[in-house]
Amino acid sequence: MKLEKYNKDLNYSYTLGAFPTLELVNYKSEYVINIYIHSSFNNIDVINKIKSNIDESKIIYDDKVFNKLKDKDNTYIIGVFNKYSDEIDNLSNHVVLDNISNMGNLGTIIRSSLGFNINNIAIISRNIDIFDPKVIRASMGSIFSCKIKKYVGFAEYLENNEDRNLYPFMLKAKNKLEDIKFNNLKPSSLIFGNESSGLDEKIYSKYDSIVISHSNKIDSLNITNAVSIALYEFNKQIK
Amino acid sequence: MKLEKYNKDLNYSYTLGAFPTLELVNYKSEYVINIYIHSSFNNIDVINKIKSNIDESKIIYDDKVFNKLKDKDNTYIIGVFNKYSDEIDNLSNHVVLDNISNMGNLGTIIRSSLGFNINNIAIISRNIDIFDPKVIRASMGSIFSCKIKKYVGFAEYLENNEDRNLYPFMLKAKNKLEDIKFNNLKPSSLIFGNESSGLDEKIYSKYDSIVISHSNKIDSLNITNAVSIALYEFNKQIK
Repeated sequence: MKLEKYNKDLNYSYTLGAFPTLELVNYKSEYVINIYIHSSFNNIDVINKIKSNIDESKIIYDDKVFNKLKDKDNTYIIGVFNKYSDEIDNLSNHVVLDNISNMGNLGTIIRSSLGFNINNIAIISRNIDIFDPKVIRASMGSIFSCKIKKYVGFAEYLENNEDRNLYPFMLKAKNKLEDIKFNNLKPSSLIFGNESSGLDEKIYSKYDSIVISHSNKIDSLNITNAVSIALYEFNKQIK
Repeated sequence: MKLEKYNKDLNYSYTLGAFPTLELVNYKSEYVINIYIHSSFNNIDVINKIKSNIDESKIIYDDKVFNKLKDKDNTYIIGVFNKYSDEIDNLSNHVVLDNISNMGNLGTIIRSSLGFNINNIAIISRNIDIFDPKVIRASMGSIFSCKIKKYVGFAEYLENNEDRNLYPFMLKAKNKLEDIKFNNLKPSSLIFGNESSGLDEKIYSKYDSIVISHSNKIDSLNITNAVSIALYEFNKQIK
């Protein structure tokens, strides 16, 4: 198989580094095409974990591939896998990201969500490529143990995920996070917007919106920090 | 004045972009050397705010400077300022960062700290350059309304900041964040370690250490997310 430098039109993608590659073989081994190991990599424990999850015939030692594909100098393991699609579970809590644009942010949010026990993630976007190696790297491979589904708009998300508590996070909101009591009789959706523009008030202000209060000395919180704070408070109340 | 590409040995630094430059002229106008405005920049409101804070003789229109110094294509304002040193206030709450290594993380944490009303920040490090333009950019200029002081070790920090509650955040800890009641009879120090290795247990485990519990599906939380969660909970209790 001739490997191309990553672009979103490929039907396969890459895990760059040992950590995300181990998550790939642990959780999505059925989609693995090949695992490349650099000749200078000698962590036997990692190699054995890979071998225990995938067929040895899929492991290739070829240092030239690394020069072509690596994003950092210390990349000694690369996984190649077929892209796949997930369904998300309507009976579980969701993180919903409407129009997130930065791939590092998306990966970091996936990792935090899993850290606070939400592994169903809805992405509302026409553009963002969830399998970009930058997303996978920032998620530290946690993308492979989450269910992620893309929707073209919030209407489509609602049609497919009924009877839920909808909690959009926005600056002009009805509730403060420190005061809210999350409802745990139904599954919840914690909804976050674009890094610069936030959520569209026309769509979201009719729901039970929440603001994370901050001092007037800053313009806004960083999006991954805002999501983490929300997940922490939600998890504390719901568990 | 002939401007060099930034390096840490210069006694001046740069704000790249309108947002951090406005914070510079608002809070630290006495250190401004020059403000460069690109000929294609036409936001009169921003230009007037700059003129209201610094002497017009310091404003220079010179597009060539941008080609040399900008880090992003959409940089149309650059501030040049003398580096300065702060003292921090022992009667206020502190964020303490021991051995943080990534400049984007440092800037993001400064911004979150200010968002949760902590504007005294102690940096324990021999190396990190708090005035690197990458730190300033990530802080969105909030560095200019904080007091930041560097120490070479935690012992030096303690000597200069006595009679405080010390709360180191670490994985092996005595308390869970969701259970702890912060003491507000004395000022507090929320202490965080390096992105990969955390805080040194030999130094910090004797204090009232705190863990932010997360699922075993991830290895750790991103450092800026962990700091934000801690700041949110602390601020909620102390205010």
